[in-house]
Amino acid sequence: MSAALPPVLQELIRSLQKLPGIGPRSAERIAIFIAQGDEACARSLAELLTATRDRVRLCTVCGAFTEQQPCAICSSPMRDGTLLCVVDQPTDILAIEKSSAFRGKYHVLGGCISPLLGIGPEDLRVAELEERVAQPEVQEVILALGTDVLGDATSYYLARRLGAHGKRVTRLAHGLPVGTGLAYADELTLGQALEGRREIT
Amino acid sequence: MSAALPPVLQELIRSLQKLPGIGPRSAERIAIFIAQGDEACARSLAELLTATRDRVRLCTVCGAFTEQQPCAICSSPMRDGTLLCVVDQPTDILAIEKSSAFRGKYHVLGGCISPLLGIGPEDLRVAELEERVAQPEVQEVILALGTDVLGDATSYYLARRLGAHGKRVTRLAHGLPVGTGLAYADELTLGQALEGRREIT
Repeated sequence: MSAALPPVLQELIRSLQKLPGIGPRSAERIAIFIAQGDEACARSLAELLTATRDRVRLCTVCGAFTEQQPCAICSSPMRDGTLLCVVDQPTDILAIEKSSAFRGKYHVLGGCISPLLGIGPEDLRVAELEERVAQPEVQEVILALGTDVLGDATSYYLARRLGAHGKRVTRLAHGLPVGTGLAYADELTLGQALEGRREIT
Repeated sequence: MSAALPPVLQELIRSLQKLPGIGPRSAERIAIFIAQGDEACARSLAELLTATRDRVRLCTVCGAFTEQQPCAICSSPMRDGTLLCVVDQPTDILAIEKSSAFRGKYHVLGGCISPLLGIGPEDLRVAELEERVAQPEVQEVILALGTDVLGDATSYYLARRLGAHGKRVTRLAHGLPVGTGLAYADELTLGQALEGRREIT
């Protein structure tokens, strides 16, 4: 970079570029916004970055992001402890919560089984999951992993392993996304949507 | 936002959304990256944000971003003090420096004249510019303002006002951007490119 920008601004731009989705141009725009923008905004952002790094941990029970142990969902009496939803990453919980369609509890697996990458069940939080499923309270395990090859394979593996506990194991429905036409659906999705068709009552 | 994210993370997401070009999804991605990412990266970013806000000021001579007074360009003996390039904003200096085509000094106007918005020459750094142009060292003033109506009007105003000092006043060439076909040029640009055509020597 040139002498046109003071060193601290250049460093800030380099640092911002390490963030996901921030390229050189966005980093420059943000750095200049900070340099000329509202002072309180820059300071509170700096404090929140440090506070987040200091205070946010993974829940020891489910693996979600949390400031308290166990997390708000795990410790809530309003959540249905008979339903356990298994997700890949902590961020997936966020997506499901936004749908407001699930009132049970979660379990973060931390990845999918991948023989090619050398990731086996022992590298994921599978043992912890099995322990939770073994508790009498749990009646159904909903597998909400990705619908790619790795997600599918992991779902089948978990279904077989958890089935031994005599609990109901389900997975999310495959089918057409809401708000789209048939023309936009790929043939695999369409096949799954046909196979999983439901009677209109 | 839901209980799925700890409060400090939600606050960080809200704070990140105030940055230019950062929407809700990017803010979420960045916040989660900070929560699970490299600790040193989050801390240094927080420190740089505060340092930038504390140390970056506008150069009292040219109006560029700087940590020292006057800025690196204004105080450099390597820069040609006979050429003065007038730009709209401090960021424009950055764009020109990247081209490596200019070795003179700069003057930031801080905007363009706009009767509709009530912005007159007295609201911009025009008096400071005139003072600098009056110095015997300066031989040419290059107007590098935008090529829209306001930029053009401001350029003509400045050319008339600065012309009184008997210095050469020029503006950037209008024409075809490099690396494009005629098919992509609008008719105004094409007209200017024809008018400003140059002999191949």
